[in-house]
Amino acid sequence: MKKQALILFAHGARAASWAEPFLRLQKLTQESEPELRVELAFLELMQPQLPEVVKKLVDLSYESVTIAPIFLGQGGHLLRDLPLMVEEIRQQYPALQIQQVAAAGEDAGVLQAIRDYCLRAVAVNP
Amino acid sequence: MKKQALILFAHGARAASWAEPFLRLQKLTQESEPELRVELAFLELMQPQLPEVVKKLVDLSYESVTIAPIFLGQGGHLLRDLPLMVEEIRQQYPALQIQQVAAAGEDAGVLQAIRDYCLRAVAVNP
Repeated sequence: MKKQALILFAHGARAASWAEPFLRLQKLTQESEPELRVELAFLELMQPQLPEVVKKLVDLSYESVTIAPIFLGQGGHLLRDLPLMVEEIRQQYPALQIQQVAAAGEDAGVLQAIRDYCLRAVAVNP
Repeated sequence: MKKQALILFAHGARAASWAEPFLRLQKLTQESEPELRVELAFLELMQPQLPEVVKKLVDLSYESVTIAPIFLGQGGHLLRDLPLMVEEIRQQYPALQIQQVAAAGEDAGVLQAIRDYCLRAVAVNP
């Protein structure tokens, strides 16, 4: 069986507190799927960044990597920066199979969960 | 009954495409709760911005507003910028009841939905 990894790709920020939900998401996802290696990588301002995480996975003989952008909106970072980074990674590791999927905010289930959260918040704070 | 509104507060970006999931979220939330007025406001780079949306709601006699940050991480924008904006709004409209709730990314249901999305994406792109 191919050694497969999932990289949760997040923006990064100056405040350390910003990373907390992403760390929880990584733990939650890893626990749900112990066979899959789940990593977290940031675009900027936080470590580790994407090229470093991919290098580590290649060094560990991972053959297939799915990059899931944990972003709500798809702006310049996902339309321009990430594809360029992925292209560089492909050139550097031609044997590695890489999939970049759509941003989490494009998923209907994610939007429904955000709606549910907001409506609960209104009900609790009438 | 009090006239009540929910403001989905998002960051904003240069690319118009960035707003799409937030517009879908607004529509989805409004359809689920027709009695509640659901507005979308941006911090920067996109219109309408928060003070303008609050002014419109006050002009329309809304008495209670819940501001739900549609952010995953809580960084400087939510820890510093938004509380300052809310404080200014409170001073300007002392009769308006305002609740600022935690970022959507702090909600366990939202993180579970993102996990589910990522695991489905890996399964579809093995």
